[in-house]
Amino acid sequence: MDCIFCKIIKGEIPCFKIFEDKTVFVFLDVSPITLGHCLIIPKTHFENIFDINDSDLQKIIVVAKKLSEKIKNNLRADGIRISQSNGKAAGQDIMHFHLHIIPRYKNDGFSNNPALTIHSPKADFKELKELVKKIQSL
Amino acid sequence: MDCIFCKIIKGEIPCFKIFEDKTVFVFLDVSPITLGHCLIIPKTHFENIFDINDSDLQKIIVVAKKLSEKIKNNLRADGIRISQSNGKAAGQDIMHFHLHIIPRYKNDGFSNNPALTIHSPKADFKELKELVKKIQSL
Repeated sequence: MDCIFCKIIKGEIPCFKIFEDKTVFVFLDVSPITLGHCLIIPKTHFENIFDINDSDLQKIIVVAKKLSEKIKNNLRADGIRISQSNGKAAGQDIMHFHLHIIPRYKNDGFSNNPALTIHSPKADFKELKELVKKIQSL
Repeated sequence: MDCIFCKIIKGEIPCFKIFEDKTVFVFLDVSPITLGHCLIIPKTHFENIFDINDSDLQKIIVVAKKLSEKIKNNLRADGIRISQSNGKAAGQDIMHFHLHIIPRYKNDGFSNNPALTIHSPKADFKELKELVKKIQSL
């Protein structure tokens, strides 16, 4: 299957990996909306929430909680927006289930009523590499 | 505690209820972003994702999946956006954990890169009442 996220999981495409276990894979969005924007995906290819099984979904949401805590503490985020799109009409771009963890900062340029757009310019890869360590730290 | 969602759960404030079990409560957002915009909340008062326990969170995400399916089928939504905000900096308005289920429709006025703002004008309550039945139907 020609899925970019499946290739990332297999290591065929490089990524800035934050975390991995048997079921779940977490990496930095290279077009971050804000500093520390991560994606959480199941290792099995599910297209969307209609497709994924309950067990994988439950594992993902617990990882989302832990990751949100880490980002809040390690990046000193003031808030966390979680977002997940299903179907092209909802703005889903890559047809492999993914959950966005979007750190929010006071004065991050988004109001409380903002366009949290999914596409942003690509970030500096050196900075992303540093960011991985920062998020992973205790 | 002076929490509007706790009052809704207790029935002290009316709402357009979609679903309820021991742990989870689902109702229509009265200021819907799109037709069928629902909120999923835990019955226990947790402020946000940092505060909620894993078990309640896992129950909520499974309800989110089921509700997404229902909305897709019963309202003929073309997609579903799931959104959940933690902290005022992330746009959280009511400090009781809530997960937005936002149906998306082709030509719903939002582009794929949209501001899915959290506040919209209040909807017609008669229409919301009809909507509850529609979503609940098989």
